Amino acid sequence: MPPSTGAEALLRTAAAAGARVCFANPGTSEMALVAALDRVDAVRAILCTFEGVATGAADGFGRLAGAPALTLLHHGPGFANGIANLHNARRARAPVVNLVGDHPDRHLPYDAPLTSDIESLARPVSDWFRRSSQAKELPADVAEAIAVALEPPGRVATLVVPSDLSAATTDATAPPRAVTPAAPVANEIVERVATALRGSRTSALLLGAGASRAEGLAAAGRVAAATGCRLFCETFPARVERGAGLPAVERLPYFPEHALQALENVEVLVMAGAPEPVAFFAYPDLPSRLVPDGCRAETLADPREDAAAALAALADALAAPARGAAAEASIPARPTGALDPPTLGAALAATQPEGAIVMEEAATSGGPYFNLAAGLPPHTLLTLTGGAIGQGLPVATGAAVACPDRPVVAFQADGGGLYTVQALWTQAREGLNVTNLICSNRAYRILQFELARAGVAEPGPQAASLTDLSRPELDWVALARGFGVPGERAETGEALVTALERAFAEPGPHLVEAVI
Amino acid sequence: MPPSTGAEALLRTAAAAGARVCFANPGTSEMALVAALDRVDAVRAILCTFEGVATGAADGFGRLAGAPALTLLHHGPGFANGIANLHNARRARAPVVNLVGDHPDRHLPYDAPLTSDIESLARPVSDWFRRSSQAKELPADVAEAIAVALEPPGRVATLVVPSDLSAATTDATAPPRAVTPAAPVANEIVERVATALRGSRTSALLLGAGASRAEGLAAAGRVAAATGCRLFCETFPARVERGAGLPAVERLPYFPEHALQALENVEVLVMAGAPEPVAFFAYPDLPSRLVPDGCRAETLADPREDAAAALAALADALAAPARGAAAEASIPARPTGALDPPTLGAALAATQPEGAIVMEEAATSGGPYFNLAAGLPPHTLLTLTGGAIGQGLPVATGAAVACPDRPVVAFQADGGGLYTVQALWTQAREGLNVTNLICSNRAYRILQFELARAGVAEPGPQAASLTDLSRPELDWVALARGFGVPGERAETGEALVTALERAFAEPGPHLVEAVI
Repeated sequence: MPPSTGAEALLRTAAAAGARVCFANPGTSEMALVAALDRVDAVRAILCTFEGVATGAADGFGRLAGAPALTLLHHGPGFANGIANLHNARRARAPVVNLVGDHPDRHLPYDAPLTSDIESLARPVSDWFRRSSQAKELPADVAEAIAVALEPPGRVATLVVPSDLSAATTDATAPPRAVTPAAPVANEIVERVATALRGSRTSALLLGAGASRAEGLAAAGRVAAATGCRLFCETFPARVERGAGLPAVERLPYFPEHALQALENVEVLVMAGAPEPVAFFAYPDLPSRLVPDGCRAETLADPREDAAAALAALADALAAPARGAAAEASIPARPTGALDPPTLGAALAATQPEGAIVMEEAATSGGPYFNLAAGLPPHTLLTLTGGAIGQGLPVATGAAVACPDRPVVAFQADGGGLYTVQALWTQAREGLNVTNLICSNRAYRILQFELARAGVAEPGPQAASLTDLSRPELDWVALARGFGVPGERAETGEALVTALERAFAEPGPHLVEAVI
Repeated sequence: MPPSTGAEALLRTAAAAGARVCFANPGTSEMALVAALDRVDAVRAILCTFEGVATGAADGFGRLAGAPALTLLHHGPGFANGIANLHNARRARAPVVNLVGDHPDRHLPYDAPLTSDIESLARPVSDWFRRSSQAKELPADVAEAIAVALEPPGRVATLVVPSDLSAATTDATAPPRAVTPAAPVANEIVERVATALRGSRTSALLLGAGASRAEGLAAAGRVAAATGCRLFCETFPARVERGAGLPAVERLPYFPEHALQALENVEVLVMAGAPEPVAFFAYPDLPSRLVPDGCRAETLADPREDAAAALAALADALAAPARGAAAEASIPARPTGALDPPTLGAALAATQPEGAIVMEEAATSGGPYFNLAAGLPPHTLLTLTGGAIGQGLPVATGAAVACPDRPVVAFQADGGGLYTVQALWTQAREGLNVTNLICSNRAYRILQFELARAGVAEPGPQAASLTDLSRPELDWVALARGFGVPGERAETGEALVTALERAFAEPGPHLVEAVI
């Protein structure tokens, strides 16, 4: 190789290791990396005008593509703007590699304005962290970062690239690193779980990671056919394949008392690719662990093990039939009249095209959709994995980059949508086929419920004000226009169906504000 | 005191210690604090729809009010969204106290979705950090946090409040804590600096913190009258009082070669409330430290010492006159024709009302304004202190809360404005007198300059795309409307002057998009 910049050497290795896209919000310290992107065409640079959009888009890309999504971020504060969606990405176990520019080592002691402790900021959301120390090591460093990120089902890796190293000349190269595959599950575990299932009257599987993809679901359906067990996905699955012909899964309810109720008579609960269920928040007099008393919890595969293969082995051990039960085709009627969560969900379910990718961060507006969509043509559901709202629009953006031939829906609550609304601009620039369905209830409705749960029957003016988004009302159609995305408002089922059909029929991004 | 919740006890102590406002973006774990705000009227709750708005507004409030600004944030990811502007606030030395809700200790081992290492995230931007461990200690904990935050000129303190503690019953109270005053400067230092100034032909003062407020500036003007020294403020001052009748200060240039040039013949450079100047970024063949070879650097007062008193003592030691030179009144002519940075700056300078607070994050569009405003009626200039763009709209928001009787200007570059554009909604809700002047050059212009400085004469398509905001063009008037703020676009000097005059004349927030 002729000498190049460290940045170019880094990007060439990243491309060889499978990186195809870099969601970027660069600054001065990343100029060598920006310049190098013009010499490494295999990596497509996509500008995001806020870092939370870049990291959320990387999450969405990673969840769908199974390839490493790069981000390019600016010092500690730029990284910090991306932390909330990296927190979500880590909970989604998406393969993401952050490249973070920083000052050269020699400049750090001067405490220039952007100097910050990037490592302290990055550790909580990074499974792997390194600050490169030599230009010639940049290719090997990024190769290691990508190999870590690709460990199934996926991890977040953060590499700090000082600006002098990325600008320096080097002839170093590095081959891609071998990726550690998902750990296989031992036969004894499979046998133990099979025995437990055989010995129980009522059982359930909790599916996550690979167990909620097509292959794992098929095996889970076989287990259900053999044992009569129920199939649950996590309350907030990273990705679950759904629709007619696939085994139907129930969603574990959100509030702990409802989750405990759903599992009330389950004698054996088997975790396959999911951790044991826990309460999202702690409430007085409710447990953190959501495995009911008297229910035996068995882990077939944790999220980093090969849950799909383990389920197939389990099905074989149970002498299950070759095919389990599948959801029947069913499309809800088009709703009419005023909008509420059920009619909103029906409008989306009645119109979403086959093969859609639906990123659901609809909060209290989204509940009914899940069951309404059970019998639709096959599609992919993504959800808000880490509870840091503002993931939906960026994840949908990244999913659309990963899957340009599939329609993508951002089914998004209004409150959460505001956090990363800048994603609309990237959708417009890249011409992405995203239908942004904004559930405009003009409130943080979940917090109104939570206030009531906390015993505040009648909030005073300050509490009321802190959970309200109606003064002034947000005009989402104007916001969309501001970012270059065509939008329209719907206040009835009929109008919403028409608007969604138009959005799905036309190429490029659209926004539909559903006022409920 | 009758028993109350821990949250209420905390807020009562905070109010007694001077807290009047809480910029809030709460979630479930903060419901007890939200409910308590209705029982502690002295603390005004202001909803922000993104945490970076809350922390930036707290910075702006703190810089103007000299009182502690509270924020209310949700777990690690919510805090993380506020980090970039806390980084700026810490560089601005603004008094800010973050209240961060979290899970109870008992819930943490279950690794629920929002569980995160808040301390690791908070330390880099917090001068003080604590996780409360008992409800009865909440009042004392917040009293200590506020006392730390108020140490002159100001600090950032972060208190994590587990949800079970804020909801628990307690009869604990705590008095406000004494605030450590700014450290006085020893007479020997004053004498040494006086001797150095007397012995030099050319000298300069670099003013920061208290030295750039009215009292400090007056003393600096006396020193200048006695010695002929030049007066500089930092490149990015947190707050500087300006205008006719006040000593005129020069702004230290941004690029290191220009700063070195500005200080070229200075024999003695005296730091008064400012650290020694350093390069914002590191460039090849340019030093990090911007004190030229042969220039003697003397620190009269560091930013935490009483720079204003030290300057007064220095003026006395130099037998300076009672009054130094002051900037003469001068208002630039109203510009006509096409807009560029000089005409844009002239339009603002020609129209801004007396007593205005101007938050300048105008980047490459903002340069000419500084000198054009030197002779305006007295006003206050705030700037982007930490280099984390997206500070302007929130800081202006908080400044307007602190000073409801003063007109506030957010003089804001378009690229940076996008990061925290949600501030517009809070301005609309609170009816704040903020004129948002968006400099719409539809590019990250500074990065185009930086690419050229890095030797990229003709950027390729990817580098060009990463520094461009014109595809699609942002419609800032639509964005403003979306957030409930009236806006208009100006493409000429005449139109801009008219728009600004209208914005200043009408109450409430306005946005003017100046296309340059």
